[in-house]
Amino acid sequence: MKLLEERIRRDGIVRAGNILKVDSFLNHQMDIALFSEMGKEFARLFAACGVNKILTIEASGIGIACIVAQEFGCPVVFAKKNKTKNIAGDVWTAKVESFTHGRVYDIIVSKDFLTKDDRVLIIDDFLAMGSALQGLIKLVQDSGATLVGAGIAIEKAFQPGGDLIRSQGVRVESLARIASMDPETGVEFCED
Amino acid sequence: MKLLEERIRRDGIVRAGNILKVDSFLNHQMDIALFSEMGKEFARLFAACGVNKILTIEASGIGIACIVAQEFGCPVVFAKKNKTKNIAGDVWTAKVESFTHGRVYDIIVSKDFLTKDDRVLIIDDFLAMGSALQGLIKLVQDSGATLVGAGIAIEKAFQPGGDLIRSQGVRVESLARIASMDPETGVEFCED
Repeated sequence: MKLLEERIRRDGIVRAGNILKVDSFLNHQMDIALFSEMGKEFARLFAACGVNKILTIEASGIGIACIVAQEFGCPVVFAKKNKTKNIAGDVWTAKVESFTHGRVYDIIVSKDFLTKDDRVLIIDDFLAMGSALQGLIKLVQDSGATLVGAGIAIEKAFQPGGDLIRSQGVRVESLARIASMDPETGVEFCED
Repeated sequence: MKLLEERIRRDGIVRAGNILKVDSFLNHQMDIALFSEMGKEFARLFAACGVNKILTIEASGIGIACIVAQEFGCPVVFAKKNKTKNIAGDVWTAKVESFTHGRVYDIIVSKDFLTKDDRVLIIDDFLAMGSALQGLIKLVQDSGATLVGAGIAIEKAFQPGGDLIRSQGVRVESLARIASMDPETGVEFCED
């Protein structure tokens, strides 16, 4: 999606260690007009898939997911990062590894809000190693819901998550796929 | 706001200890069509106030804030709950007490995204003791931005936060104000 790529080129900041800061428009301050255009693109990509639920994960996925959901006319459910050791029995749960924070945590969704009647589109802001997305996919599979696919804002395509998950037969659509990035020369996108 | 009050009566679950579960439509599963109506109501209440930024706090405020921001045509900034002990120097920060979780945490917003040029409407899902809202107000005041007011979905008006903050001269508009609640008899709203 050209609009998002141009925005990343203009306002994204590349730091050493493959860090891309997009907090001026995506995940701290959020440009809602941009999110609306992203929502229209996801609606085009996943048209006629019968999506009736959007699933995302707190915190930075929530904003995009809510704007996308308007296009599909459906509710959003966000997975919570569990802070307590006791998980109640009436939740779907998965383990997610955070490479940024160097730890493993549980994500949970109430069984009330993810059922076999749901046709789920997963939305998230970033895809890199794919651990969060794998966790969300597990929640959907465990619930018996149908997974339509995953819509991602920015994929670090030089990291293995996207290819790994596509190889499992999951449809993954990323609006901007980064081939490489460097603090000196900036961001290069994949040619599609 | 009648629509929200009716929804709370229908789908809210009152538990002992003044707990109101609204996770089927507000803060776990999110009814985006309801959020749109709430956004229109906030736009009516804060019309002609020159709002050019919405401020909220992760995680459950983000969804409402993003839909509200569409009405104002402005970006959203969400305060992050800081998990590390080291706070970088280029953030506004405040302490917030969580009565639910029994602890104090720091909230932070980058100084880049809250400045003296901003006219800020704070949006959050709940107001009870008011600690989160007080923290958000402090961030706005420290930044030199203008605080237009706060828009809250559900206020527990039998707890002191709302009155305390209004007594400080802050305009607080809550779409549903709960006068009392009880697991047996349900929710009573304030007569306005």
